[in-house]
This record gives sequence, structure tokens and C-alpha cells, in this order.
Amino acid sequence: MYETDGMKRDSAVTIARILDAAEQEFSAHGLLAGRVDEIARLSGCSKQLVYRYFESKHGLYQAVLDDISRRHEAHLIRQDYDSLPPIDALSLFVSRLFDIQKRNGGHVILDLAQQQENDEHPIYYKQWPQLVGKIVACLEKIIERGREAGDFSDDIETDDLLILINVMTNGSISFGRFIAKMMSKDMTQDQAGHYMEELGLLFILKAMRKMPVTVDA
Amino acid sequence: MYETDGMKRDSAVTIARILDAAEQEFSAHGLLAGRVDEIARLSGCSKQLVYRYFESKHGLYQAVLDDISRRHEAHLIRQDYDSLPPIDALSLFVSRLFDIQKRNGGHVILDLAQQQENDEHPIYYKQWPQLVGKIVACLEKIIERGREAGDFSDDIETDDLLILINVMTNGSISFGRFIAKMMSKDMTQDQAGHYMEELGLLFILKAMRKMPVTVDA
Repeated sequence: MYETDGMKRDSAVTIARILDAAEQEFSAHGLLAGRVDEIARLSGCSKQLVYRYFESKHGLYQAVLDDISRRHEAHLIRQDYDSLPPIDALSLFVSRLFDIQKRNGGHVILDLAQQQENDEHPIYYKQWPQLVGKIVACLEKIIERGREAGDFSDDIETDDLLILINVMTNGSISFGRFIAKMMSKDMTQDQAGHYMEELGLLFILKAMRKMPVTVDA
Repeated sequence: MYETDGMKRDSAVTIARILDAAEQEFSAHGLLAGRVDEIARLSGCSKQLVYRYFESKHGLYQAVLDDISRRHEAHLIRQDYDSLPPIDALSLFVSRLFDIQKRNGGHVILDLAQQQENDEHPIYYKQWPQLVGKIVACLEKIIERGREAGDFSDDIETDDLLILINVMTNGSISFGRFIAKMMSKDMTQDQAGHYMEELGLLFILKAMRKMPVTVDA
């Protein structure tokens, strides 16, 4: 019994190490060019062990996506929005989405978006609709409260808003530094990230605000 | 004389054909994995001829970027904005930027953004600051007119706005279809592009509009 628990714990540690290495390798080189040899080397495991746990490179990629999706859920979907004014709650939501894109798999998602162009790997979507449903519900609650308080306009649907926030956060992480550089803004990667986040947030809040009714004096 | 003109025309046609093939190959496979062999095959030229005109793969990539940049300039920077109301002029500007990202090198830019992560190829920026300067000046003129007309808020600087529009248009093209699919919107590529463009434009116009002064009745 004791030994079995120990073995389970060892397995969990090994699996986590392989997943970390796989995310690193796929982030840098994508699904097609990413190498299982390198993932084995980075995680300090044999290639055989990687295949024992994950069967194939595609299986491992799927597992990395599931892992990222779990982190999305844990970081983004929380109860603490309820205690904040709606505008602050939306800001926090957007800023957490920036965090996720920055730290967790922004590059994997980018690679995925490119891979998906040819629709060959529909398997990757398996567990995501559920997660998206939860995220929409969480955002919907914030927006509803904001509309009741008269803060938010109601001419953007919640799922459209979520798509826009994702394009903005994902695009800021992927192109932000490049675009900032093109504009001759001489910034380090950290500064560029900070700048893009502030600008993106300002833009989202400005787009969402309700136009006050004008009264001709 | 006659013969020389003919030779010049032939050269121009060959160069254009090589550039088209190079854009196609680099868009699909990126700078590192893109193959000069394949570019020669696609353009119907010998590899020797490709190297005679462009010296190296890096030189050819640079030439593709310059070509894209010329198309940006021709399509985006025009005088016809002046005859439109500022909101319509901004809409047209954004819609032309969507066109460019869709048709001309969206993928090359994406590849470039990824390559640039390690700052190894600063050569690619060579001719772009000039172009960016012209684009900013063109947008600035539209925004200034809109501010004078009371249409646009003045709490977003023109260069910040240009960065935001680029993140939005570029991100919509790159991630739009993927994100729409994640959200279980069942769309063809064309529908998704259309949807993202309408949504992005609505968002940009909403963010830019001026808040009317409220008067307590």
C-alpha cells in the first residue's frame, strides 16, 4: 500500500515533468517540428517512458493542451469577481487572460491556430467546449451586473466580447513586441508586454462603456 | 535598344514570378523551413537564376517583405479618405488593413513576428520605419478631422491606435477562425473572416467614439 502510493506519486511527478518539457518544446517548435527525443532529454526520462504514458506525439500534444486548459480554468474562473464593481471585475478578468496567454501556452495556441488551417486534427478541441462554456458564463455574470449598474453598453454579446478579448490578448502577446518595434518604440520584452496589456485593457473598457443619454440643454 | 527594353521587361516578369513563389513558400513554411529549391520550382526558374537576382534566402525574404510593404502603401495610403466623413474614413482604413492582412503576407508577418523573438535578423526592419511613418500620418489626418468634428475621443494617441488596429486585424486573421471554432461557431473560413472584420470594426469604432457630455436634466 505504502509502496503503491509512492509509485503513484512518482508517476505524477514524472508525468508533470514530461508535460513541462513538452510544452517547452512544442512552444518553441510547434507540433510538427517538435521532437519527442528532445522532450525526453528535457524531462530526464527515456523516450520509451514518454511513449508509455502518452502513446504518441499527438497524444502528448493533446495532453499539453488539456493541461493548459486546466490552468485556464483555475486562473480565470473564480468567485472573487462578485465582490468587485463590474468595471474592476472586467479589468481583472482581462488581466488574468493576459497572464494566461503570457505564461501558459500562448505559443502552443498560436501553433495550434496555424495547424488548424487545414482541419486535420479536430481531436484537439475535445475538452475545450466545456471550458469555453464555463468562461462565457463567468464573463456573462460580470457583464450582466455591469449592464444593470449602467456601466456597460449592451450592443456587444458576451460571446462576441470573449472572442474580441481573446484576439486582443492573444494578438498582443504574439505580435505586440514586433508591432511595437515596427513603430520604433524601443522596448524590452517586459515593457512591451506591460504596454500592450495597458493599451488593450483601455481599449476593451472604452469599447464596452455605455454611452450616457444626452439631454439637449 | 528595342532588344534591351525587351530584356528588361523579361527580367521584371521573372522577378515578379520569383517573388510570388517566395511569398507562397515562406507563408506556408516560414523563413527557416522555406526552401529555395521549391521557390525555383514554383516560379519555373532555375535555382541559379533565383540566386542571381536575390543573392541569398535572406535576401529573397527581405525582398518579399519589401514587396508586401509596397502593397501596404499602395492599398492603405490614399487621398480618398479626405472626401469621407471621419467615421467612414476610419472604417475604410480599418477595412483596407483587414484586406491587406488577409491577402498580402499575413502569414509572412506572423512568421516574422516569431522569428523576431530572438532578434537575430534586424535587417528586416530596414525599410519599414518609413512606411510606418506614412501610415501614421495618414491615420493621424483622419483622427484629427474626427476630433474636430466631435466624433472621436482624444484619449488614445494615433500611434497607439495604429498598434491596436494592427493587433486586432492581424489577430483576427490569424486566430479568428480558430477562436470562432473554439466558441462552437460553425463557420467557413470566409464567414469567419467576415464575422471577425465586422466585429473588429464595431469594437474599434466603439472604443474611439467620443463620450457626449451629459447634462443633468
